[in-house]
Amino acid sequence: MDQSNPKREIVFRSPWFQILARQPPGVDQPYYAIQSPDVAVIVAVNDRGELLLVRQFRPAVDLMTLELPAGHIESDETPEEAARKELREETGHEAGTLELLTKVSPSTARFTNRLWCFFASNVKPCQRAQPREAGVDFLYYERDIRSLLDEKEFISAASYAAMFAAVVRGRLKI
Amino acid sequence: MDQSNPKREIVFRSPWFQILARQPPGVDQPYYAIQSPDVAVIVAVNDRGELLLVRQFRPAVDLMTLELPAGHIESDETPEEAARKELREETGHEAGTLELLTKVSPSTARFTNRLWCFFASNVKPCQRAQPREAGVDFLYYERDIRSLLDEKEFISAASYAAMFAAVVRGRLKI
Repeated sequence: MDQSNPKREIVFRSPWFQILARQPPGVDQPYYAIQSPDVAVIVAVNDRGELLLVRQFRPAVDLMTLELPAGHIESDETPEEAARKELREETGHEAGTLELLTKVSPSTARFTNRLWCFFASNVKPCQRAQPREAGVDFLYYERDIRSLLDEKEFISAASYAAMFAAVVRGRLKI
Repeated sequence: MDQSNPKREIVFRSPWFQILARQPPGVDQPYYAIQSPDVAVIVAVNDRGELLLVRQFRPAVDLMTLELPAGHIESDETPEEAARKELREETGHEAGTLELLTKVSPSTARFTNRLWCFFASNVKPCQRAQPREAGVDFLYYERDIRSLLDEKEFISAASYAAMFAAVVRGRLKI
């Protein structure tokens, strides 16, 4: 038995996440954390310096959103492989070099997983047709990056976080 | 009955969040969304331009983290009131002007709530002693903001998101 976390129990399961209850000794209420796979988020720009974005309906927020390409990292793939796969499936583009910008927590208060934020430069349309993810459209964002904050659909904290890392690392100019 | 979301059911409750299952007609699997109160996140700087950060243990990530001051917006308070209260309780500082930078979703895939990101300039220690939140320490971040990405404890996507908004809005220089 792990003395630092003596009681751990899965109290809810869905295909996408599970809830872990941990009850340290002498504490009345269990602490709940949400477990789900890590996620790759990609700041991708083409050779004209345009940012690649995806638009999709998000039931949790009941909105069409504009976000960076992103998706779960499956247990049989590396974060880099997942980033390349998501870019292909969501946008039909191939990443050249891929650089890890940072790894962050989507919610330090509640989630156990991490967001792996990548920068992909000089992305190009795939030469061969790719199976594309249904319900996800892509676009090149042609406006100034500062304008993103005024786009009503651009509300993903994960996208904001990866953009901050790309700017701080000098990969994007604002 | 709401035709657009005909079946909704709370399938798990904790004191901090609840899980809502929605099953659109003709769909086999319910869709799960996590409901919890909105959160205020505060980019706060003092008159020397130093950023105010808080350090605390976060069980979900099993780490001491360094984050922007933040906390739940209770049902009886405005987002601005919550931001001022969190700043007082977590850091013992009083905000002067408070500006809403942006409102984002902590997870467009899973959470229904929003993060209200504020900028507070010229914050000052409260003149009268305040009840302080247990287990939360504050500090002035004296290094360059670019250094934040290399701080192992600075992993909160919510903090990254609010920082991106503060930089894009011209409130912080990097």
